[in-house]
Amino acid sequence: MRVLITGANGFVGRQLVLRLLEKGAIASRLISHLLLLDAQLDGFAEDPRLRLHKGSITDAALIRRVLADGIDVVFHLVSVPGGAAEQDYGLGYQVNLLASLELFDQLRQQARPPVLVYASSIAVYGAGLPARMDESAPTCPQLSYGAHKLMVETALCDLARRGEVDGRALRLPGIVARQPQANGLRSAFMSDLLHAYAAGQSYVCPVAPEATAWWMSALCCVNNLIHAAELPALQASTERVWQLPVLRLSMAQVLDALANRFGDAGRAAISFEPDAHLQSLFGAMPLLKASRAQAAGFCHDGNANTLIRNALKLPAGRKAL
Amino acid sequence: MRVLITGANGFVGRQLVLRLLEKGAIASRLISHLLLLDAQLDGFAEDPRLRLHKGSITDAALIRRVLADGIDVVFHLVSVPGGAAEQDYGLGYQVNLLASLELFDQLRQQARPPVLVYASSIAVYGAGLPARMDESAPTCPQLSYGAHKLMVETALCDLARRGEVDGRALRLPGIVARQPQANGLRSAFMSDLLHAYAAGQSYVCPVAPEATAWWMSALCCVNNLIHAAELPALQASTERVWQLPVLRLSMAQVLDALANRFGDAGRAAISFEPDAHLQSLFGAMPLLKASRAQAAGFCHDGNANTLIRNALKLPAGRKAL
Repeated sequence: MRVLITGANGFVGRQLVLRLLEKGAIASRLISHLLLLDAQLDGFAEDPRLRLHKGSITDAALIRRVLADGIDVVFHLVSVPGGAAEQDYGLGYQVNLLASLELFDQLRQQARPPVLVYASSIAVYGAGLPARMDESAPTCPQLSYGAHKLMVETALCDLARRGEVDGRALRLPGIVARQPQANGLRSAFMSDLLHAYAAGQSYVCPVAPEATAWWMSALCCVNNLIHAAELPALQASTERVWQLPVLRLSMAQVLDALANRFGDAGRAAISFEPDAHLQSLFGAMPLLKASRAQAAGFCHDGNANTLIRNALKLPAGRKAL
Repeated sequence: MRVLITGANGFVGRQLVLRLLEKGAIASRLISHLLLLDAQLDGFAEDPRLRLHKGSITDAALIRRVLADGIDVVFHLVSVPGGAAEQDYGLGYQVNLLASLELFDQLRQQARPPVLVYASSIAVYGAGLPARMDESAPTCPQLSYGAHKLMVETALCDLARRGEVDGRALRLPGIVARQPQANGLRSAFMSDLLHAYAAGQSYVCPVAPEATAWWMSALCCVNNLIHAAELPALQASTERVWQLPVLRLSMAQVLDALANRFGDAGRAAISFEPDAHLQSLFGAMPLLKASRAQAAGFCHDGNANTLIRNALKLPAGRKAL
């Protein structure tokens, strides 16, 4: 089968590539071709299944060439992150919205409806979530990034209803632990804290210790993306948007797990200077009941200790002291 | 002030043009230019304020020319109707979705944020509405038309949140009484029944007498559109999508009102051959509580008798027997 990953060079994308090459199949069907699309595609291991398509998702002709020999499964991951898309509206509009619509429009014209796994985001909800939240919570994006994700979800559901793609959209929380970089991702502090503590570096956390966030490791995220692709063919009328289960942890709970793994000494290097706006966006996340997603087989990392281990790719078992 | 109407040649558009010329102002600001955009623009009365722009909303260069001298208020009405857009997906995608996004993107680049009144639709809800419905009902479009309306609402809210347009979206029910024509509008039966009864013609109604629909006359709709434009400048954080109040009437109640106006004799010419799919889309509408819209000054026609009078443009008062 032929599989495409957009945004293959991204933080989640690169780990998805590795995992799919290692796994070799999706739902027992061998992967013959793994097509990677991204603006940069460096440092991927040699593998006869890989096809590197370097270029912009906004290049409709490139998409047409990539899809020319047919496609069975698409993981559509590429995004301009939330903070960057808010600053440069035009860029987010072109990449996150218009390019996604163009990709979907080309996919719907395939001979057989491809499986389309879309990385949506909890940014669709906006601020002011209900204190006890479930999968039916209303959406009210507070960033253009979230508005565009929501619009693309709607497009995916519509094409799926028409039987033209077999779409599955997952609302992802902030995924950890990204390498520190100025990439315009507003939730980057979640990754930065983990790396800093693990490295014994000092870190000024921009949300308070009691701020609660939704957590998921890249490992767990990749497993969920692959699980989404492996779900049996969905009927046209099926609900196709899942809020992934998440670990809802306060910064204090995450610090406890970090101390558990790396020792208490690191605590002294962590200080707090809460930014009210950032905290309202990422530090006031309520309890989440995601029964429907769990019933469909989607998972979170389990607990704070396994989150830290998965996120930092640490060996299982004893403390790394 | 400069005012633009897209879809100005449509059923609602033409009545909006007449009403605005007659009224002469929006929120006490005189209308100096009324720009009309549509594929056809025939039979408008001579008026020095009118500027006719004949062409397609999908022509981005035309939009640019239309907006070149600035714009204060836009009524964005143009749509490929639901049935037609479902049949010809590509056309609906280009007109209802992409052209709307392009228009909004050009509007957000205006020097001053224009007031943008968008004619959305109850098609955003889909079938299976709650038995007692209010303005917070979840959306689940069952037609591409409704999906695209929902996506454009989301775009409008996002640009309004950014302060780039002062958007106001109204979810319209089926508007009566259109002239009979094969225009791909699935709710056309609502208008057809009224015209047939008024003309003493026989009519086979495709939903049952007990089927309940949401009703609004074009007169009432135009008043609501103008009211939306006249609301004072909204803060960026304000909710900008209103489900208009509607008259929820069974076909039997509408028949009673028709009999009340035109006499009982016409009843014999009306028969029923319900189409299950059509009835699930337009004939199973629940009670609707639209408190927020009513508090903002939006209205329905009042009662079945005034609906008939408004819809058929009859003089007030005694029966037309």
